[in-house]
Amino acid sequence: MKPHISLITLGVADLPRSRAFYERLGFGVRQESNEHIVFMDTVNGLILALFPREKLAEDANASADTDRRGAGFPGFTLAHNVASPEEVDAVLAEAVAAGATLQKPGQKVFWGGYSGYFADPDGFLWEVAYNPFMDLT
Amino acid sequence: MKPHISLITLGVADLPRSRAFYERLGFGVRQESNEHIVFMDTVNGLILALFPREKLAEDANASADTDRRGAGFPGFTLAHNVASPEEVDAVLAEAVAAGATLQKPGQKVFWGGYSGYFADPDGFLWEVAYNPFMDLT
Repeated sequence: MKPHISLITLGVADLPRSRAFYERLGFGVRQESNEHIVFMDTVNGLILALFPREKLAEDANASADTDRRGAGFPGFTLAHNVASPEEVDAVLAEAVAAGATLQKPGQKVFWGGYSGYFADPDGFLWEVAYNPFMDLT
Repeated sequence: MKPHISLITLGVADLPRSRAFYERLGFGVRQESNEHIVFMDTVNGLILALFPREKLAEDANASADTDRRGAGFPGFTLAHNVASPEEVDAVLAEAVAAGATLQKPGQKVFWGGYSGYFADPDGFLWEVAYNPFMDLT
């Protein structure tokens, strides 16, 4: 298959809450969105979608076991790269102001960059990073 | 913050196994990759990364509770859109040949498209979809 990811869909507990959070963070909601699903554009054309967790599990023919919800590690991260350590701290502060939880304060990391993490309302983890070796901004 | 996702990093149980799977699927491994982490390019510039699950949890200051591993629903999906229902079935077959599990056979879906799902070696879910209403290919 072509190495292409068209959308990432997050299974969320409260769709209006998540939509409001991502709008505060700066994501624009596409006109195809409605009360059942939210589509948001990102800079490189990837779409970030929000869909109720139970319905996403059902759509994927998976069991939305409740013991996996709301605690622990979701097993993946999203990354948002910026151009400086100062910008990492600024974006983390912006996310917290929008309703995120600070998961890990910005700090120098072993691979030579600077990064921190915030958790969105469902615990999905975003790394905010400055990487002096790869231009990902 | 700018609505930009730079990378998606999947926390995997067996890095060589996952790397081989994604290479068979058609992802190209970037030269920055090594025995600790794998970076793969996608068409729109997003990078799909593979990193050991425990280390990813540690990096994100999260607990990699084992009761969340290997079963149930990871809470998010990745989508790969194609141009026809026939292509959905072909990509699903290609993924299974590469070592994926068929999670949901290709079928007409309520929103008017055609889609199916495969699970990668860690249970991360990929939807393969034909959407006649949004050009995401």
